[in-house]
Amino acid sequence: MRAVLFDVFGTVVDWRAGICAAVREFAVRHGLDLDAGAFADAWRARYVPSMRTVRAGERAFVSLDVLHRENLDEVLTASGLDPAAFAPDELADLNRAWHFLPAWPDSVAGIAAIKRGYIVGPLSNGNTSLLLDMAKLAGLPWDLILGSDLTRAYKPDPAAYRAPAQFLGIDPAEIMLAAAHNADLAGARSAGLATAFIARPDEGGPGKAADLAPASDWDLAATSVTDLARQLDS
Amino acid sequence: MRAVLFDVFGTVVDWRAGICAAVREFAVRHGLDLDAGAFADAWRARYVPSMRTVRAGERAFVSLDVLHRENLDEVLTASGLDPAAFAPDELADLNRAWHFLPAWPDSVAGIAAIKRGYIVGPLSNGNTSLLLDMAKLAGLPWDLILGSDLTRAYKPDPAAYRAPAQFLGIDPAEIMLAAAHNADLAGARSAGLATAFIARPDEGGPGKAADLAPASDWDLAATSVTDLARQLDS
Repeated sequence: MRAVLFDVFGTVVDWRAGICAAVREFAVRHGLDLDAGAFADAWRARYVPSMRTVRAGERAFVSLDVLHRENLDEVLTASGLDPAAFAPDELADLNRAWHFLPAWPDSVAGIAAIKRGYIVGPLSNGNTSLLLDMAKLAGLPWDLILGSDLTRAYKPDPAAYRAPAQFLGIDPAEIMLAAAHNADLAGARSAGLATAFIARPDEGGPGKAADLAPASDWDLAATSVTDLARQLDS
Repeated sequence: MRAVLFDVFGTVVDWRAGICAAVREFAVRHGLDLDAGAFADAWRARYVPSMRTVRAGERAFVSLDVLHRENLDEVLTASGLDPAAFAPDELADLNRAWHFLPAWPDSVAGIAAIKRGYIVGPLSNGNTSLLLDMAKLAGLPWDLILGSDLTRAYKPDPAAYRAPAQFLGIDPAEIMLAAAHNADLAGARSAGLATAFIARPDEGGPGKAADLAPASDWDLAATSVTDLARQLDS
C-alpha cells in the first residue's frame, strides 16, 4: 500500500452541518421560512442523479460546481421559491457552501498521521477548486488534490478510481480508498483498489439509515480516520 | 493575487547537488571514473531541447520521467559508456534521482509562510509523481500538485502557464509565478501571470553565468523564498 485516498463528502467533512448553516444564513438574509435540514437533504439527494447523464456519456463533463448550482435551482423551485428572484451572486455564494464544509473532529489529525507513511489525498467527485478551498479552510493536510475535473470522471465510473494511480505512478492495488459509503467501496474494489470503511453515523442527520456498518468484507473497517491511522500503523 | 506557483528545478530545489550525489553513488557502485558535475550539467543541458518536439506537437506528450530517461542514455553514450551495459533497474534508479532533489535551505519555511495567505503549488515541467516524491522527501507543504502530465503541456507553452488557473477556478492574473529563470518569467508574463524573480546564484554550480539578476521589471524580485514571503506580506 502506497496511498490512502479519501472520499470527502460525509467521510472527511460533515456536508450536512455545513450546508444547513449556509441555508439558515441565506434564509435569514432573505426573510425566508426554510427548513434548513430538509433543504440540505433535498439538495444532497439530487447529487447522485445529477451525475448520471455525465457518467452515461449523454452529457459532456461539467464540474460538480455546475451540477450543485443546477440542483440548487431545482431545490429552490421545489421549495416554492423562484430562483430568478435572487441575485445570481447570492445563489453563487450559497452554492459555494460546498467548498467550505467543516471537517469531522478526527479528520485533520487522522490524515496527518496517515501522511507520515502514505500518500494522502481526496478521491472525490468534487472539482479541484472545491477540494482546495475546503482543504485550506479546514487544514486538511493532503499531499495532492486530483479533482474530478482533472480526471473528468465521476465515481462509481471505474475510470475515476483508476485515474489517480496513473498520476501517482503506482498500481491501483497500491491505493486504498477510505469511505463511509459501501457503494463507493464496492466501486473501488471493482476497480482493483483496497478498501477501508469509516463509520460516520452522524452523516445524514438524525434520520440516517444507510451505511451504518460495513456491508462487505472490506480490507479494513474503522470508527474514525484516527482509528484508521492506528490500524494502518500496526 | 490568490496563488503563488513555483518553478521547481533550480528555484525550489538544488537539482545539481541532488544529481551530482546520485551520479557519484552510481559511479562508485559501478567502478566508473565519472566527473559527476560535468555529467549532471550534460544531463540537465538536454532537458530543454528534449521537450522541443513535444512542445512543437511533433511528438505525443510523454512525461518528464521519460525524457530524463532518454537523456540519460544519451549522456552515458556521450561519456563513452554503453547504456545497455547496465541493468535497466539501475538506470531507472539513477533516473529517479530527479524525484528526490534537496530543497534550498529557505524553501520549506518560505512556502509555509506564503501558504498562510495564498494557494501554493509547483508550476513545473515535472510530472505529478516526481513532484509528489520530491514534496514528501523535502517536506514542501504544497496545497496541491498539478504536474505537467495533468496539463499535458511544457513551459514555455502558454497552455502550461494558463492551465492551473482553470483548475484553481481563478484568473491567470491572480497567479504569480516565482522562478529563478528570466525566460520562464517571460513566458508567464506573456500568458498573463504576475512574476517574481528569485535569485539562485548557486544553482548552476561554480560556473553559473545566466539568470544572476532579474532581466526585466518583474513584479517582484527576491533573494529567497522567505524574502518573497516577506515582500508578499507587506
